[in-house]
Amino acid sequence: MPARSNPGFSESMTSKRNAFYAQSGGVTAVINASACGVIETARRNQRRMGKVFAGRNGIIGALTEDLIDTSKESASAIAALRHTPGGAFGSCRYKLKGLEENRLQYQRLIEVFRAHDIGYFFYNGGGDSADTCLKISQLSAKLGYPVQAIHVPKTVDNDLAVTDCSPGFGSVAKYVAVSIREAALDVASMALTSTKVFVLEVMGRHAGWIAAAGGLAQESAGDAPHIILFPEIPFDQQAFLTKVRDSHDRFGYCVIVVSEGVRDADGHFLAEAGTRDAFGHAQLGGVAPYIAHLVKDKLNYKYHWAVSDYLQRAARHIASKLDVAQSYAVGKAAVELALKGRNAVMPTIVRKSNRPYRWGIGVAALADVANQEKFMPRDFITKDGFGITAKARRYLAPLIQGEDYPPYRQGLPRYVRLKNTAVPKKLKTEFKI
Amino acid sequence: MPARSNPGFSESMTSKRNAFYAQSGGVTAVINASACGVIETARRNQRRMGKVFAGRNGIIGALTEDLIDTSKESASAIAALRHTPGGAFGSCRYKLKGLEENRLQYQRLIEVFRAHDIGYFFYNGGGDSADTCLKISQLSAKLGYPVQAIHVPKTVDNDLAVTDCSPGFGSVAKYVAVSIREAALDVASMALTSTKVFVLEVMGRHAGWIAAAGGLAQESAGDAPHIILFPEIPFDQQAFLTKVRDSHDRFGYCVIVVSEGVRDADGHFLAEAGTRDAFGHAQLGGVAPYIAHLVKDKLNYKYHWAVSDYLQRAARHIASKLDVAQSYAVGKAAVELALKGRNAVMPTIVRKSNRPYRWGIGVAALADVANQEKFMPRDFITKDGFGITAKARRYLAPLIQGEDYPPYRQGLPRYVRLKNTAVPKKLKTEFKI
Repeated sequence: MPARSNPGFSESMTSKRNAFYAQSGGVTAVINASACGVIETARRNQRRMGKVFAGRNGIIGALTEDLIDTSKESASAIAALRHTPGGAFGSCRYKLKGLEENRLQYQRLIEVFRAHDIGYFFYNGGGDSADTCLKISQLSAKLGYPVQAIHVPKTVDNDLAVTDCSPGFGSVAKYVAVSIREAALDVASMALTSTKVFVLEVMGRHAGWIAAAGGLAQESAGDAPHIILFPEIPFDQQAFLTKVRDSHDRFGYCVIVVSEGVRDADGHFLAEAGTRDAFGHAQLGGVAPYIAHLVKDKLNYKYHWAVSDYLQRAARHIASKLDVAQSYAVGKAAVELALKGRNAVMPTIVRKSNRPYRWGIGVAALADVANQEKFMPRDFITKDGFGITAKARRYLAPLIQGEDYPPYRQGLPRYVRLKNTAVPKKLKTEFKI
Repeated sequence: MPARSNPGFSESMTSKRNAFYAQSGGVTAVINASACGVIETARRNQRRMGKVFAGRNGIIGALTEDLIDTSKESASAIAALRHTPGGAFGSCRYKLKGLEENRLQYQRLIEVFRAHDIGYFFYNGGGDSADTCLKISQLSAKLGYPVQAIHVPKTVDNDLAVTDCSPGFGSVAKYVAVSIREAALDVASMALTSTKVFVLEVMGRHAGWIAAAGGLAQESAGDAPHIILFPEIPFDQQAFLTKVRDSHDRFGYCVIVVSEGVRDADGHFLAEAGTRDAFGHAQLGGVAPYIAHLVKDKLNYKYHWAVSDYLQRAARHIASKLDVAQSYAVGKAAVELALKGRNAVMPTIVRKSNRPYRWGIGVAALADVANQEKFMPRDFITKDGFGITAKARRYLAPLIQGEDYPPYRQGLPRYVRLKNTAVPKKLKTEFKI
């Protein structure tokens, strides 16, 4: 395999270099819609862009030269990515270190990219992977094989900076809002003689966006959820119990959404507050059972609790149509930006108006996105700390709009499984992860 | 209010007596579809049947003379019950005792029925309420005011006798199968560097039907779920751990469905096996965290766990179309049976063929249904006790067929809230529950 001589950007725009695409971090119900956007757009521009090679298990696939040749997949298989949850090529939790700490990793990446004539790097992830993406852009130039690195935004946590929202969030938001509306009808109808307090635990270790979305289930005052517990607000046990009792007395029941990341005033996760599992370990995990047992212990109300865990971020069957469209759009825009010669950027969602909700695609410099976290603004949370404000509702409501049902066969969604054919290796060396 | 003299069945068929309808026990995603079937069919036969009065909070509404006049609801509101989960009139967990133990309760019921000219008693519930329904039929005759008592089958547990399946089960089955298929894609795509074992806890305190439905997610050998834990099979820790390790080694991950009712060889619920909550109480509840921590403790695999709880039985957004149709049909059939003069019976689902799946409505004597529980046949469970057989699959697969999406507004299901107007009381006496 002859190495390319001096493959600068101007040349890369006229020649036909291959692209690398990888999924990073926790997957979502719609990350494959972004993959679909990348691959379909690259295919439509095949006179200017070569093949799209995907990393098997994310960036690990690049390090180990374990590349997937997406050109072996049919058009219908690629189209089906749009309605298939999870990570079709595999993702990973694996953070590249800085060049100073691990020069070998970056050298290896460039070696693999060079061997497979890869000039475009599309990295589909959150704030950490935006940082990786930026480093690869910078270091590939330093190492004499510049690649155009474009970040494709994705995270259920909605905590990416600059972009109005994060692709993946709208669908988990819809799942949580729908689930709360449904469970609340169940609890309300039985509360007289059965369960009075229902607790749903949702994701969001640092930011309360997902918990806040539960608030969309509420149509009128008195509707569930009656209490939302945010990681941004230190848990005040007395105020909480007073609110539970009040909800019970006024409505006969109380529905609570709790973020997994809720902490006490000292900054300790409630989920770790002294629980012991059957094996004597300190943490059983699950803040929902903690909250439910607190209510039972102090107020003696019958309770039930649920933990959605992966179900919420995999629930493609109830994905937000808008979220699917935006996830696809950022994948498409990433390829278009690459073809325009852009580097170290990320397509963003730009909100143009709330009512009617209108949006477009913008561009952010990766330096502005990398390693940032966007928390809930304080004025999105009610003064008492237990609910969302009208302002939050205006922001959140458009993001769950529309249904985008997958096709079904025999009562179950028809999710695609790709062939994931390996690209023949060209390097003789192995790389240990 | 003049009492009717000698209101025997022959008279009730030609005169126009009112009907009482109540929801009993745990509600489901489709119990209101049965209510819809009862009320719409009664309205279509209003020359022969009077008003349908619903019990507010189930049978408690009858005892306290707290009746809801469903004739005050519009046709569109009643039609919307078909797609609304929970119990629209309220349900309760309240079991009537035998006549010997509490004659006053039955006398009160008859007093209320007589006061409101109620000649038909439609009771929408499981095995316990079939027994109540039978007693009311028998004792109303003894007490000189015979009512026709028809049971309308409902339970997510699928444990009702005689009927091929229980309305409510197909929808929770679909929810569990879809959720497992989705979560498994998530876990599989991250397993190399993250979670290797995922545990989903589902309902089914005594019978493993719901857990079994998780098995429908599996299309090919090696697909999730890799292990199902049934209440019918005593938990064998060593065999279980061996199976987890084997799944991990062969597929890279392991997805487990566990019924809340799983017990050890001594008959103790695993969920109670020595866990201590933050308040020092013996039971934290949740067999999913127990199983997950067992795997971590013995095999050291990274895990995640989810508990669906009420979400599974309220998930009207992913209801089985067949289940909705059957739930409506048993409500409709109950009224038709009443108008034919039948008493102490329950409409059943009769399976006519598997492929294509065809079904019809049959009739069971309440004496054959009351207080029975239908467990999974042993030949529905694989020999090793961790999966479902082809026979189970043939039985289960038709029950989750078809989607029946509710209407949406602003991204959320439009579930109806009835006015639930009270019928003016006619009795001077109060009854304490």
